[in-house]
Amino acid sequence: MPMTDLQERIATSFQAQGLMTTLGAELVRVAEGEVHIALPFSERLSQQHGFVHAGAITSILDSACGYAALTKAPPGCEVVTAEFKINLLRPALGDRFLAIGKVQNAGWSLTVCTGEVQAFSGDGSAPKVVALMQATIANLRPPA
Amino acid sequence: MPMTDLQERIATSFQAQGLMTTLGAELVRVAEGEVHIALPFSERLSQQHGFVHAGAITSILDSACGYAALTKAPPGCEVVTAEFKINLLRPALGDRFLAIGKVQNAGWSLTVCTGEVQAFSGDGSAPKVVALMQATIANLRPPA
Amino acid sequence: MPMTDLQERIATSFQAQGLMTTLGAELVRVAEGEVHIALPFSERLSQQHGFVHAGAITSILDSACGYAALTKAPPGCEVVTAEFKINLLRPALGDRFLAIGKVQNAGWSLTVCTGEVQAFSGDGSAPKVVALMQATIANLRPPA
Amino acid sequence: MPMTDLQERIATSFQAQGLMTTLGAELVRVAEGEVHIALPFSERLSQQHGFVHAGAITSILDSACGYAALTKAPPGCEVVTAEFKINLLRPALGDRFLAIGKVQNAGWSLTVCTGEVQAFSGDGSAPKVVALMQATIANLRPPA
Repeated sequence: MPMTDLQERIATSFQAQGLMTTLGAELVRVAEGEVHIALPFSERLSQQHGFVHAGAITSILDSACGYAALTKAPPGCEVVTAEFKINLLRPALGDRFLAIGKVQNAGWSLTVCTGEVQAFSGDGSAPKVVALMQATIANLRPPA
Repeated sequence: MPMTDLQERIATSFQAQGLMTTLGAELVRVAEGEVHIALPFSERLSQQHGFVHAGAITSILDSACGYAALTKAPPGCEVVTAEFKINLLRPALGDRFLAIGKVQNAGWSLTVCTGEVQAFSGDGSAPKVVALMQATIANLRPPA
Repeated sequence: MPMTDLQERIATSFQAQGLMTTLGAELVRVAEGEVHIALPFSERLSQQHGFVHAGAITSILDSACGYAALTKAPPGCEVVTAEFKINLLRPALGDRFLAIGKVQNAGWSLTVCTGEVQAFSGDGSAPKVVALMQATIANLRPPA
Repeated sequence: MPMTDLQERIATSFQAQGLMTTLGAELVRVAEGEVHIALPFSERLSQQHGFVHAGAITSILDSACGYAALTKAPPGCEVVTAEFKINLLRPALGDRFLAIGKVQNAGWSLTVCTGEVQAFSGDGSAPKVVALMQATIANLRPPA
């Protein structure tokens, strides 16, 4: 599929994800093998100390990895996350978060992605990596 | 800490998690080494096919494991999720979901939990396990 | 496949694993959805402090999970480990170790297993769980 | 600790790992935050199809990540692997394997590493990545 068609397909799919709207996430980049999703800070996403909850960080990174895998999937395939592992490196403290999912290996049935979430503060300092993911995404072939 | 104090402390902490309110999650059980969190289905939590997004499933299971670890933490400790791994076994399809986090081993600095999310449909059939987690939670000691 | 055929097939496959012989591991139980592999202590398997190396513990548990998955695989399928995650709960200290792999969910293309390694000391005390695994095993179908 | 002392300390520790000798692994590089371990192919390391067993691949990558973490650990600390996750991307087919462990984040008590194993064939073609790891290593402080 040409990249512009893929970008449109992914934008449409993203819009259909109720959770992304509920969290306030935005799809900001779709390239071959790499997808970025941004999330502005909101108290609605907090854990008990006021930082962003690991679950919100995980949600956008899982979506970024899944869509990155979709850019490399065989024509006609859907993708579904089989599993992932995430390390939370430091408190998710910032004004805005950017999840970056990248394909590391695209096989016939499984795609392996890695990803990170960067936290941006409003003061112009360099972003900090708050989470690292390694994920396995399965290709779902259409019924023959 | 006596269990009733712990239950109160965890209920207060849960209430302070903006994300749990945003998702519509409820704390339903706090026992020694085991915590349950429920999540009713909502389109606001969906992925692109209308099932509940892996991120929402993960969020309640991460919280359940974290609070289970807290029930076993040394007095005065806070806990923070260091990392987890989750397998998504089937689409999260149901009226209501129940995340169960259990402590498997509580060490001096790290607690290992396992957890699952069960999906309940409205027709009275047996619940189905839709996700399995293995998580590492770190104890944060108060400054000496 | 009847269980006795499966047991024979797994015993033959186990014998063909050079690494299991090198480590000194033994296949001790094959049941539907559950496989046990034992490993006697040897200095040849140590890490720098004299305990059994995480790599040896992981090797027998990976094999136990893989063969457990094979007992549930569709006829004619081979299996291959796609990924796993392991927590090392305490030093692998003991005379003998037992890896237990169990199928949690067997899907069309992926099987999810959990497993643990128990350490036995010579003094008759209860075994201790030294490791917990959650693994994803892929079914490899024969060419049509 | 100066890098030369660290290199010596890690070389001595590596020599004390019975498993590394049993597998035939060699420590080939120790730099700040990065350690390489090589493993020549041997039938003694095989799984049932003659490829190198995931357990052997995992063993050298776990050691590479652990020693990489040690290069960043506070003075006087020992390190121990708390957990890791590994994806096996393709059969471990080759004459020689190289495990590369890298520190991604070194915290007070936990260090997060990522790593890969590259397979080299004798024909001079580019190496292939056969495994990806994400690991959590704990610092063990000496008793006060």
